[in-house]
Amino acid sequence: MNLKFTIIATWSFSASGVKIGSEILKNGGHIFDAIEETIKAIEDDPNIDSVGFGGLPNMAGEVELDAAIMDGKTLSLGAVAALKGFKNPISVARKVLEETPHALLVDQGAEEFALSKGFQRVIMITDKSRKIWESRIKKRSHDTVGVIVMDESGNMACGTSTSGTFMKYKGRVGDTPLVGSGLYVDNEIGGAVATGLGEDIMKGCISFHAVYLMSQGYSPKDAADEAVRNIYKKLAKDKKAHDDISILCINTNGDIGAATTRSKFEYVVSSEDIPLSIFVVTKIKILE
Amino acid sequence: MNLKFTIIATWSFSASGVKIGSEILKNGGHIFDAIEETIKAIEDDPNIDSVGFGGLPNMAGEVELDAAIMDGKTLSLGAVAALKGFKNPISVARKVLEETPHALLVDQGAEEFALSKGFQRVIMITDKSRKIWESRIKKRSHDTVGVIVMDESGNMACGTSTSGTFMKYKGRVGDTPLVGSGLYVDNEIGGAVATGLGEDIMKGCISFHAVYLMSQGYSPKDAADEAVRNIYKKLAKDKKAHDDISILCINTNGDIGAATTRSKFEYVVSSEDIPLSIFVVTKIKILE
Repeated sequence: MNLKFTIIATWSFSASGVKIGSEILKNGGHIFDAIEETIKAIEDDPNIDSVGFGGLPNMAGEVELDAAIMDGKTLSLGAVAALKGFKNPISVARKVLEETPHALLVDQGAEEFALSKGFQRVIMITDKSRKIWESRIKKRSHDTVGVIVMDESGNMACGTSTSGTFMKYKGRVGDTPLVGSGLYVDNEIGGAVATGLGEDIMKGCISFHAVYLMSQGYSPKDAADEAVRNIYKKLAKDKKAHDDISILCINTNGDIGAATTRSKFEYVVSSEDIPLSIFVVTKIKILE
Repeated sequence: MNLKFTIIATWSFSASGVKIGSEILKNGGHIFDAIEETIKAIEDDPNIDSVGFGGLPNMAGEVELDAAIMDGKTLSLGAVAALKGFKNPISVARKVLEETPHALLVDQGAEEFALSKGFQRVIMITDKSRKIWESRIKKRSHDTVGVIVMDESGNMACGTSTSGTFMKYKGRVGDTPLVGSGLYVDNEIGGAVATGLGEDIMKGCISFHAVYLMSQGYSPKDAADEAVRNIYKKLAKDKKAHDDISILCINTNGDIGAATTRSKFEYVVSSEDIPLSIFVVTKIKILE
């Protein structure tokens, strides 16, 4: 088959995962499978230190992972946060979406749920991530994977996964698994995923904000710009750090837009018209 | 002193707490103190089975509490979710806001944080809540307390607290501690708090939505109506239950509005002009 599809994802490290997701959509696979397999490939890569296996640990030395998947048809979310000991939080999040009346399970509850669904416990910390942790590098790693897919019928879904900020407090949950902050999608409008400092992204609920703006006629690029500009301006008044917010948007036509407060933000696109490609957007101009 | 102030809260059971918060604001106390003391009074009341001490347990028989506080000046959130063994989650949430770089701590991480800040462990389940749990009544209790306060200088804050839905999965987190879903406030616009079935409220990020609409010139009543109507209409397409969403809004002028999908929703108001009063709003008319 060679069906119409679009898949977009944050950061160039997502390219190998997007390739897998593209094949699923092209061949008529389910949008949830495309989200899950794309993100699993990234979670499984021990060289990506901000997502899944090999993710950097919290202040207590444990790898705690957050992930979410949202269905653009029902607006339902499945998410896990502060999940320890499982390799693919995105797969557990999908089970929350499909097999519970709930949207978000955390920590011990998420762990017991994962075990009840047959997921296997693994040792999550790698030698590499332990060394980085032990040397306590004052680096902040905010490179959440966020993926949005659309199939031939216009069904959309999005997903996110992260190990969170480096040296985070135990139990800290950022924007990644939170509806409206890390992700939002509505089949009738479009979708958005965010990456960066979760605590700042949450202040603006920027994924919901961008999707809402698209419902009011904004293009994905204008919506991305406005959602980032709005929160950047508000945070600037408080003179706190606010230099790490990026967002990626798509509407029902498959138009794509991104915005960032960083010097640059890379994202991956693949569709029936666009071969697997990496795009770059540079720092948003803040007017006024 | 007899300073200008406004305090509003969900449900008539909040009246005794609102009285305490009113006194704090009237006498020039801090908005965070008003939020914390109002909600603590409700959390401490064992007869309120949906918030704090006496709250109904999860499916595993444990009382897990969620609470949040948001600062309208900085847009910062402090929240805890799935917290076990502490009487006043709102007080722990305030510590997250004031003394961490984070916005949300969950379960074991939240518990260790609470202990590190000197909070005392308590047995959270009461005889009454255990009996209700043991009889496994098929009742859904969604009566989250949500409070919004404004002081003489126009500073705003909001707070929420709940024990979550009855017979919830262990580790389940609803809208209550989630920015944009259970609560949102911006000193320059106004604030909103939501109560009802968290998983549905999250689908519409209705607190952020309502505050955004107020920024676009909607009155609090029109913003409340539109935020509820929007998600109600979307959920109606999916033919799922969607009969338990209520929202309470206020703008910078102190104008108040509420909307609900229930037959009625009661809320409490106190200000320099309005003596402690209970208002009632009835089911929203869904046009089209």
